[in-house]
Amino acid sequence: MIISEYDNRLQDALSFINGGDDYLVVSHVQPDGDAVSSTAAVFWLLSKLGKRAVLINESPIPQKFAFLAGAETIVHYREQPPQRKFKRIIAVDCADFRRIGDVAALFEEQYELLNIDHHPTNDRYGTVNVVRPDAAATVEILYDLIQHAAVPLDLEAATAIYTGLLTDTGGFRYSNTSPQVMEVAANLLALGVSGHQLADHLLERMTVAQLKLLRLGLNRLQFSGDNKICWLYIEPADMKEIGAVPEDLEGLVNYALNIEGVEVGILFKATDNGEVKASLRSAGKADVAAIAQLFGGGGHTRASGCRLAAPLAEAMPKVVEAVGKALTS
Amino acid sequence: MIISEYDNRLQDALSFINGGDDYLVVSHVQPDGDAVSSTAAVFWLLSKLGKRAVLINESPIPQKFAFLAGAETIVHYREQPPQRKFKRIIAVDCADFRRIGDVAALFEEQYELLNIDHHPTNDRYGTVNVVRPDAAATVEILYDLIQHAAVPLDLEAATAIYTGLLTDTGGFRYSNTSPQVMEVAANLLALGVSGHQLADHLLERMTVAQLKLLRLGLNRLQFSGDNKICWLYIEPADMKEIGAVPEDLEGLVNYALNIEGVEVGILFKATDNGEVKASLRSAGKADVAAIAQLFGGGGHTRASGCRLAAPLAEAMPKVVEAVGKALTS
Ligand SMILES: [Mn+2]
Ligand SMILES: [Mn+2]
Repeated sequence: MIISEYDNRLQDALSFINGGDDYLVVSHVQPDGDAVSSTAAVFWLLSKLGKRAVLINESPIPQKFAFLAGAETIVHYREQPPQRKFKRIIAVDCADFRRIGDVAALFEEQYELLNIDHHPTNDRYGTVNVVRPDAAATVEILYDLIQHAAVPLDLEAATAIYTGLLTDTGGFRYSNTSPQVMEVAANLLALGVSGHQLADHLLERMTVAQLKLLRLGLNRLQFSGDNKICWLYIEPADMKEIGAVPEDLEGLVNYALNIEGVEVGILFKATDNGEVKASLRSAGKADVAAIAQLFGGGGHTRASGCRLAAPLAEAMPKVVEAVGKALTS
Repeated sequence: MIISEYDNRLQDALSFINGGDDYLVVSHVQPDGDAVSSTAAVFWLLSKLGKRAVLINESPIPQKFAFLAGAETIVHYREQPPQRKFKRIIAVDCADFRRIGDVAALFEEQYELLNIDHHPTNDRYGTVNVVRPDAAATVEILYDLIQHAAVPLDLEAATAIYTGLLTDTGGFRYSNTSPQVMEVAANLLALGVSGHQLADHLLERMTVAQLKLLRLGLNRLQFSGDNKICWLYIEPADMKEIGAVPEDLEGLVNYALNIEGVEVGILFKATDNGEVKASLRSAGKADVAAIAQLFGGGGHTRASGCRLAAPLAEAMPKVVEAVGKALTS
């Protein structure tokens, strides 16, 4: 996107916001750090511009993001479905309409929607669309929007934006960590954001359940004969015994991937209904999206997933064999 | 340090470099990422300025830094002690003269030394001293020096500087991650540095030995009654069986510290001579430097170490008890 075009989109977004008084702010189901941070940052901007806003998400907000200003006002749709509808919607970090989930039931028939997102697959489902695929996170676009609106950032908003950058770049470690991301981060730190406390809280600390899953997982690591494929599995009984919630599994597959010499890491998660969910990660040589597609799944070349209607003892060798073929072809 | 004073120091450093033709570049024993990167960056600058330089370190360069341009020319003093002496020395990332180790035996009697460092405890042992304690890494000072010399950075030098920043800030996660660090990082990325590959290589990947030590360590985690102290131990037989080298232990203590609710994490490492080396990490409440001092050790309030002339079975409860007292007083 060329700069002036992007500026026009930011201006459209600002006009959209200034064109009303009452907003519903939504993000994707099972919100990640960028989704919650973006919701909080939009809420902050709307408040500064004197607008009313209701924040709703289909899923609960993970506890670790509860510290963000505004996060406590995000309504959990399934627990407290509101009795009113909304005409003016702002959707953040949602690649398509379906990612909004059941909250879309709250839209009036003639709704108008501002779609702010960074996913390359975004299908421009909004009335106004600000989609910048080269942004590392939706908060990076919101940073630009706030600058464009000439509202001076404060520590609360800066903390939300830093949080979204930190989580969507894996702590400034993924390939989306652009010079622009680092410049924005520099400005946010200069505003007083405690980057090291956020990194500690969001990236370094482990729950006791995460620790126990990691210990269990490392004890169960299996390797292919050439050590290029490494995998582990977790069963429903493990989750129960440990007292783990699904988000405790986040990052576990990386321990399989990150071992020297490993090309593909896989986490097999057996579910209560007898399925197996495989999460695949590639160090670069294998296209794990293509492998996942063999089993009806999908994703990115380096991170993908699929489901198999089979017990672990069947599902694991099938996927490992497919990965082995991909690595030797 | 006020800016103009710092600029004067950079000018002094540049005059020092321009005042000779033939340099010995040294850094501290058991070099970390910043030490190797700083050595490589100084070598790069000297070459650009048409100077000859020999790079020597008392210890071998860890394999993971071998990719840095110039790292392959760093002489391992113990293996190939040179037969000549040097008059003009540049020492980087060395807080005091002793950190240079046995390489100091190569200095002529009337040596002149340029001391470039960021440690707050640096005792200005050089003929010229550029010490900036608010720099996150010595490479941050070298970045300024290269700017000051008006030598345009290329990808090789930028990669070395990024490496030093990445390793000395724990991947932009420690409290030394200043706005300036992020601005420098932004500039380096804009020069084409592959930040994500460096992060993957230097921070994410684990050797098989590291993995085995982690697995062993997690299986051995012990907690105090209130779960605020978490510790683990490694014995010489473990290192042997796993085939681990001391640098494989790097970061292991953080797994004890980073568990939710833990205030102090401790790694006890028994040595071949019957001593126990304790590495202590604090989440903030306990001053582990003061605790280490009780046993003749020292360090920082959040990271310290000490040695006890006792077997593990005696040393561990002693240190844990001292930590417990510190946490309750
Ligand atoms: Mn996102
Ligand atoms: Mn350093």
